[in-house]
Amino acid sequence: MTPDAIDAAARRLQGHARRTPLLSAPLLDEVAGRRVLVKAECLQLTGSFKFRGAFSAISAMDETTRNRGILAYSSGNHAQGVALAARMHGVPATIVMPADAPATKLANTRAYGAEIVTYDRHAEDREAIGETMARDRGLTLVRPYDEPDVIAGQASCGIEIAEELGDATGDVLVCCGGGGLTSGIALALAERAPGLRVRPVEPRGFDDTARSLAAGEILRNAPDARSICDAIVTPAPGQLTFPIMKRHCGPGIAVTDDEALHAMALAFARLKIVLEPGGAVALAAALFHGGEVAGDTVVCVASGGNVDPATFRAALERFGDG
Amino acid sequence: MTPDAIDAAARRLQGHARRTPLLSAPLLDEVAGRRVLVKAECLQLTGSFKFRGAFSAISAMDETTRNRGILAYSSGNHAQGVALAARMHGVPATIVMPADAPATKLANTRAYGAEIVTYDRHAEDREAIGETMARDRGLTLVRPYDEPDVIAGQASCGIEIAEELGDATGDVLVCCGGGGLTSGIALALAERAPGLRVRPVEPRGFDDTARSLAAGEILRNAPDARSICDAIVTPAPGQLTFPIMKRHCGPGIAVTDDEALHAMALAFARLKIVLEPGGAVALAAALFHGGEVAGDTVVCVASGGNVDPATFRAALERFGDG
Repeated sequence: MTPDAIDAAARRLQGHARRTPLLSAPLLDEVAGRRVLVKAECLQLTGSFKFRGAFSAISAMDETTRNRGILAYSSGNHAQGVALAARMHGVPATIVMPADAPATKLANTRAYGAEIVTYDRHAEDREAIGETMARDRGLTLVRPYDEPDVIAGQASCGIEIAEELGDATGDVLVCCGGGGLTSGIALALAERAPGLRVRPVEPRGFDDTARSLAAGEILRNAPDARSICDAIVTPAPGQLTFPIMKRHCGPGIAVTDDEALHAMALAFARLKIVLEPGGAVALAAALFHGGEVAGDTVVCVASGGNVDPATFRAALERFGDG
Repeated sequence: MTPDAIDAAARRLQGHARRTPLLSAPLLDEVAGRRVLVKAECLQLTGSFKFRGAFSAISAMDETTRNRGILAYSSGNHAQGVALAARMHGVPATIVMPADAPATKLANTRAYGAEIVTYDRHAEDREAIGETMARDRGLTLVRPYDEPDVIAGQASCGIEIAEELGDATGDVLVCCGGGGLTSGIALALAERAPGLRVRPVEPRGFDDTARSLAAGEILRNAPDARSICDAIVTPAPGQLTFPIMKRHCGPGIAVTDDEALHAMALAFARLKIVLEPGGAVALAAALFHGGEVAGDTVVCVASGGNVDPATFRAALERFGDG
């Protein structure tokens, strides 16, 4: 991944992706014991950062390839990003999604005009399904993270952080599944804001990236692990993303599902934004794992907000009083 | 109110108030039948636009006056705005609030360091209490809307809209209580974006501004009217704000409490922002009163997000499925 590829992706996204705000609240700083800046990617089109990478990849294709149609597999956020980006390019999209994906994510992906094919997340291999369908139907697969143009698109989030905080020092906490967002931001900051260090944050039981970084090699999660953070429960870091994270990122942090729900309730109360569990783990690390974080200011990338109303209500019911 | 006063307020707010984003979502446009742009003032510091006017007024005072301390009466959003703006200036604030104000608003105002004095909203007159306390304690009263420097501060929201949409034509729907935000935005747009027309939006039963504009004179609401839109249940348009609205605004629109709750649920699902009932009436008008609105694009100012978790959960429970 060259700096040129990152610059080119940022130019393609210009005027199409939203520049998301960096939010803060004095009463949130008091909880964390330091200044907390939240990069609100939940306010991106389709409700998560995934639109950046999806639009970047689809806009980079030659027209003949693109017109044959796009294929993606996704737990739901990449699905929505690809579906809308494909629609904006006027080309059809087919998305392979787990049958138990949040109803919101299934409904939205359909509403953006994509065809959905469901599979059993615990019994079937989505990558194999995707490769087969791409071959049989002549579609072009846009992988959720192990895809250079996707990583280059996610880097645009890091460029925006660097433009506001280029001279700052401290940790940038990023919600981490396969590592597309984490590695993209890390590449952008390494060039533009070398005083900022990216730290992947994962749900406990899915801390494959943290363990892989500590071991220096790719490790997988236990197959029976479960978490409510559906957006980031990937089995292992990617083949492309892991070497980038190994070169540029600090140690990973793992948080509990309850800490993610608590962070959602505090983001509701203090920032007035809607986060999904997997989009709240970075904020949860800032609020409840402060001892593992360096610096007077911490940046948290709040990666998405596509949460079912019932899950959000449960978070408010349990943690709405603070 | 001169254009100079508005420019001066904008300069004082620079670097202190947040420039809020103009959000949109394709799936929200489909509900409204036209393009909907939401000015997300819930993302302003203290969770509502009120911080703009409060900071503007406090920063405009001479130092001796300011140091004696600030007094305000408020249902809760002006309270929080004044409390934080006073704290940022290092001066004490006393706030007169209804005893039945949302718990969130009481707790936050206290958390920003203000002293709170409660009163009975249905039996006592907050303006009389405020005037008496200001005199007895030597404090300087910052009125919630009938105050030139407050209106000039709210105008900064209109300046931001004009900077993004200066050449556009169409309606700008604004949640309206006493009319400070509505008149401030109207003044800014009259200078900078004359193709945009401001329309006040109120809860049914509290449509004093709509009726006053239609009659050409200030009319009051029935004393027994009730609404969940606590932020904007003022008895009548202001003495300063009404003439401005009469000169610059189009007809008002009234929405039901249920429409406000429904708009909150759609803002949650589509925009990933948290709105309070009174902050959602402008969006409710765009979504459910489209026949009363002109133009291919409508701007809605979502004025605040300080809602108790229980009210938000109820909105999701009733309207969370769309």
